[in-house]
Amino acid sequence: MTFSVAVAGASGYAGGEVLRLLAGHPEFDVRTITAHSNAGQRLVDVQPHLRSFGNIVLQETTAENLTDHDVVFLALPHGASAALAAQFSHETLVVDCGADHRLDDPNDWKAFYGGDHTPSWAYGIPELPLANEGTQRDNLRGIKRIAAPGCNASAVSLALAPGIRANLIESTDLVSVLAVGPSGAGKSLKAELLASEIMGSASAYAVGGIHRHTPEILQNLRKAGAHEVSISMTPVLVPMARGILATSTARIKPGVTLDQLHSAWCAAYENEPFVKVLPLGQFPRTADTLGANTCLIGLALDTTVGRVVVVSALDNLVKGTAGAAIQSANIALGLPEATGLPVNGVAP
Amino acid sequence: MTFSVAVAGASGYAGGEVLRLLAGHPEFDVRTITAHSNAGQRLVDVQPHLRSFGNIVLQETTAENLTDHDVVFLALPHGASAALAAQFSHETLVVDCGADHRLDDPNDWKAFYGGDHTPSWAYGIPELPLANEGTQRDNLRGIKRIAAPGCNASAVSLALAPGIRANLIESTDLVSVLAVGPSGAGKSLKAELLASEIMGSASAYAVGGIHRHTPEILQNLRKAGAHEVSISMTPVLVPMARGILATSTARIKPGVTLDQLHSAWCAAYENEPFVKVLPLGQFPRTADTLGANTCLIGLALDTTVGRVVVVSALDNLVKGTAGAAIQSANIALGLPEATGLPVNGVAP
Amino acid sequence: MTFSVAVAGASGYAGGEVLRLLAGHPEFDVRTITAHSNAGQRLVDVQPHLRSFGNIVLQETTAENLTDHDVVFLALPHGASAALAAQFSHETLVVDCGADHRLDDPNDWKAFYGGDHTPSWAYGIPELPLANEGTQRDNLRGIKRIAAPGCNASAVSLALAPGIRANLIESTDLVSVLAVGPSGAGKSLKAELLASEIMGSASAYAVGGIHRHTPEILQNLRKAGAHEVSISMTPVLVPMARGILATSTARIKPGVTLDQLHSAWCAAYENEPFVKVLPLGQFPRTADTLGANTCLIGLALDTTVGRVVVVSALDNLVKGTAGAAIQSANIALGLPEATGLPVNGVAP
Amino acid sequence: MTFSVAVAGASGYAGGEVLRLLAGHPEFDVRTITAHSNAGQRLVDVQPHLRSFGNIVLQETTAENLTDHDVVFLALPHGASAALAAQFSHETLVVDCGADHRLDDPNDWKAFYGGDHTPSWAYGIPELPLANEGTQRDNLRGIKRIAAPGCNASAVSLALAPGIRANLIESTDLVSVLAVGPSGAGKSLKAELLASEIMGSASAYAVGGIHRHTPEILQNLRKAGAHEVSISMTPVLVPMARGILATSTARIKPGVTLDQLHSAWCAAYENEPFVKVLPLGQFPRTADTLGANTCLIGLALDTTVGRVVVVSALDNLVKGTAGAAIQSANIALGLPEATGLPVNGVAP
Repeated sequence: MTFSVAVAGASGYAGGEVLRLLAGHPEFDVRTITAHSNAGQRLVDVQPHLRSFGNIVLQETTAENLTDHDVVFLALPHGASAALAAQFSHETLVVDCGADHRLDDPNDWKAFYGGDHTPSWAYGIPELPLANEGTQRDNLRGIKRIAAPGCNASAVSLALAPGIRANLIESTDLVSVLAVGPSGAGKSLKAELLASEIMGSASAYAVGGIHRHTPEILQNLRKAGAHEVSISMTPVLVPMARGILATSTARIKPGVTLDQLHSAWCAAYENEPFVKVLPLGQFPRTADTLGANTCLIGLALDTTVGRVVVVSALDNLVKGTAGAAIQSANIALGLPEATGLPVNGVAP
Repeated sequence: MTFSVAVAGASGYAGGEVLRLLAGHPEFDVRTITAHSNAGQRLVDVQPHLRSFGNIVLQETTAENLTDHDVVFLALPHGASAALAAQFSHETLVVDCGADHRLDDPNDWKAFYGGDHTPSWAYGIPELPLANEGTQRDNLRGIKRIAAPGCNASAVSLALAPGIRANLIESTDLVSVLAVGPSGAGKSLKAELLASEIMGSASAYAVGGIHRHTPEILQNLRKAGAHEVSISMTPVLVPMARGILATSTARIKPGVTLDQLHSAWCAAYENEPFVKVLPLGQFPRTADTLGANTCLIGLALDTTVGRVVVVSALDNLVKGTAGAAIQSANIALGLPEATGLPVNGVAP
Repeated sequence: MTFSVAVAGASGYAGGEVLRLLAGHPEFDVRTITAHSNAGQRLVDVQPHLRSFGNIVLQETTAENLTDHDVVFLALPHGASAALAAQFSHETLVVDCGADHRLDDPNDWKAFYGGDHTPSWAYGIPELPLANEGTQRDNLRGIKRIAAPGCNASAVSLALAPGIRANLIESTDLVSVLAVGPSGAGKSLKAELLASEIMGSASAYAVGGIHRHTPEILQNLRKAGAHEVSISMTPVLVPMARGILATSTARIKPGVTLDQLHSAWCAAYENEPFVKVLPLGQFPRTADTLGANTCLIGLALDTTVGRVVVVSALDNLVKGTAGAAIQSANIALGLPEATGLPVNGVAP
Repeated sequence: MTFSVAVAGASGYAGGEVLRLLAGHPEFDVRTITAHSNAGQRLVDVQPHLRSFGNIVLQETTAENLTDHDVVFLALPHGASAALAAQFSHETLVVDCGADHRLDDPNDWKAFYGGDHTPSWAYGIPELPLANEGTQRDNLRGIKRIAAPGCNASAVSLALAPGIRANLIESTDLVSVLAVGPSGAGKSLKAELLASEIMGSASAYAVGGIHRHTPEILQNLRKAGAHEVSISMTPVLVPMARGILATSTARIKPGVTLDQLHSAWCAAYENEPFVKVLPLGQFPRTADTLGANTCLIGLALDTTVGRVVVVSALDNLVKGTAGAAIQSANIALGLPEATGLPVNGVAP
């Protein structure tokens, strides 16, 4: 069975990536593509890497244009999706790539985003280990409203959740530093995102616990079993268009060994098609995940300091956004979960 | 007064950078330049960016060629400098850019480098705050043997030492993740250092507490006043030729405020020409230090987790190696400390 | 019908890319993968971005291991494929990604590669317009020996051939300058290919008409109809892992207009799935072709100097090598030509 | 004697680079720094790599603020300098880094920039060989109005002028393709200058003879002795913040040899401190000129096509703009020409 699909926000990076992946999806038939300031132009003139859509023209992002599809992917600026989604039928599967429906707690929303909180939707990291057993995918089956995850939140949550569920690490005093490419910030015309500013340079931002993905990570780790949880999280902008390499550390519980740790991580993702724990001694490169819906994880134990160091790599636009959105939609619709999603990165 | 200078290991990145800086130093007269496999070639054919040395030819790296100079800079592979240095007069100022004479404790040497330990020399981070008062520069005056610091060790030690001396942070459970350019690894012909492997990708290495600069950092922080000290330190290779951006975090002592922290860091480096603490809310980019002997530091307090986050940026080849070497030599010889050393980065 | 496939040289960039594309090819079943120094290792340990091949182990590159497959792709150093290929059955389709069988003229081979010439095979740029009519794909149907093209030769030949066949441009005094990424040079451990050398820098190589793809370009343009043909071709290494952007210029014949030019180029590639001529005023970026088997072409007429300027972009490892190999194999075997080959680039 | 200096447009890339170089100039005393939208801020908060200027604050760019200095450097958007300069004393040395006073011919101005032409000033490439003898520096001595050159124009003019003056190459049908970094385009907030768009990609712009530096190149080559002159010039944006690598080709006159060519180029720049012709077989990298006022040139003869290929490298912000401005000012004021200008690049 083929599902009719609409994509809103197609001129941005996330929307473009949804379309790139949908182009290889055998069960999704993209019928409508919308944008805001670029409406009226051909998609291929705005996103010249998307050759397969031929002469399809961007329509205005309105509920009217988006309605009457089986699936709608929203890749809009934060705050824009709630009002729009309210106008869709309850039978339509709506997947929001923005942040509007990720946070359960209105206080978190107020503190990190400001403004009115909108109710959270089913959260789109299917592999997230849940406290007792099972994974977040159990909460996605048959669902009609999905919130795709934040890219940094995905990299850190997937890195730390197995240790929390297995009760091998302390869930407080976590520390995570992420090397991230600027495409996560979208096409915003800001001086600090200019190529001349970023090439040949590394810089931190949102330093001091103020990054908006922080509450999302904490929420995920609570779902994985943490009672009290705290993390110091700092993103570092580095000169690559895509990719996140998260280096996350946690204090181990007394007596925990490297083998125990590696076994727990392997067990958590044992049958996962998209999350892979590397053999001991191997660590991932972001290039290995470029363009793929893959998250690679390597870990080591620093016995001197009693901390496990977990390195996770993913493509912020794929496993961090658009790939997670499609994977979650596959689950919601009862399709084979990996349909249309590449596992091999484009390297070198 | 002008000092005669020899530079050994001139075909590598560190040696080249020593020469680039010496070219602008009014008191140092470079008379002899040596290399190993490139001996017999013109310097400018091996290091084509070093135009100011004209047709000077690389000599073989031997004690005979290097002796009879007031100052000798050694930029050799680890393990090569001790035997050579033993043949120089005690009156010659010898500055080693390698690791051979950095570590005081033979056990540290054995654990991280292996082989026989050589006695440590005066350590070349002049600004390093010492436990009671004063700085490491007090130990450099009039000295004839200097060990230039490790680049990552410089970035992390300068970031954390002020808080330790001021007794504002816990000295255990420190965590530091560094975004680093590959020039720190030198011109080694390894597949993982090829441009195709590194461009567009980020990757961690020496994960799990095994990086060789770890004991050097701990040694520095002990000098700054730490009794017990432990750090989880992970370098992440990112696609820029030069630069280190270290994100270091420490738990604050109870009741410590951001103002106290900022004041302590400012006080530690108040009169320093090369280490600068940025105003609150500002964080450094490595590009701001490119080619300069400058280390820039920004900090924030994450009150939720009770950790200060310190971001430090420097050019691994300048403040991290060659600039530190020359700055230390200036001090040892009684020259104005900043002689010949640029403070402005080349940006964008 | 599914074809059994072997790939030789799987630890290099070209071999890795053949495998990445084959992973998405529904009619090719990869049974054997070989390498030289990495034989015995798992593919995924050598090429960590190729997750889909599971635990398959690299075998030694021998005729014995490679024989008994329907299709063999050779991604070996120049000079290694002829001896090997001689041992395969005439029924086996052999596609050589190296240069050994590209050149028809033994004198060209001697002048640019040296050593003994091996007979040329059917040449793997299916879209190459031929002098009278038709394209090179006509020479590929049912064939059992295929020489995949050189990456630079593909970018330049596809850019200029339409104008030559249509008799709109002079075929002498062509000039082409190519911005190229270092992956075209393979994983060779050369100092000039180190990341520190290439990031932040541009440099020309093989200057003065000595690049090995030069005779291949001339051979292609002769097939497109040129009687006398000469080209000044200079590659410029730039800091991106993949991609070729060729800027090629030719003097137009008297009276030729921009519309005539654009029409001729559009006509040449009218029904091509992988070679696209952009609307007037648009020019391609290499990122638009990253990971795709697509060549994008934009052109302008500089009336002041009487030259057409043709800008062509492709991914050197895909349309320039592995994609062309698979596309040509599809044709040879009677499969739909586009089977398994992506047209959308991975951007940004 | 020390000259008082004002710099207008200090928040841009060109203005910042003028200041970086002036910081190392012993005869220039920077008293006033102005900007437009950043007026009122500290320079170091806007240009955080410029540490040496302490707490100096940006003033508004007005004639009143800029007047009463011995030297004024203008780094303003095109069209902004003429009105301002008219208000300065004739005794003030005014150096314009913009295009307003570069072109002699009002028709060129109209065709490439549009709007009203302003009279040209003394042109700031001192090394430009003039037709009969001497160089452009002869026209700069004692002068009070200087137009700093265009960066691309510098790279191409210096590459080709020696062959024209020596009558060894045809001055028509020149072709030049330039790999350029985006800093030449300034801090403009355009989507195509975002880091995500430029990293990992190469793209051509101003294709078809429409780049504004084209008439400037032709004007320079006429001064070097060309009667009729035409050039096809195409810039290609590549992923490096700074640098221009120009590959320029010209047909040689009958019988001309490589030795003749190399000798002519060497002779043209024999005593130049900043323009260097490399030995035969060597070609420059842009990194070798990074941050330096150096232009490096390598050349080869392609005998098959009868074209000399000249590769020239420079830093667009230094020798291409700010360095040329200061070098020209040095000459105008009777200072040693190389005062304050580095010759060694920052590499790797």
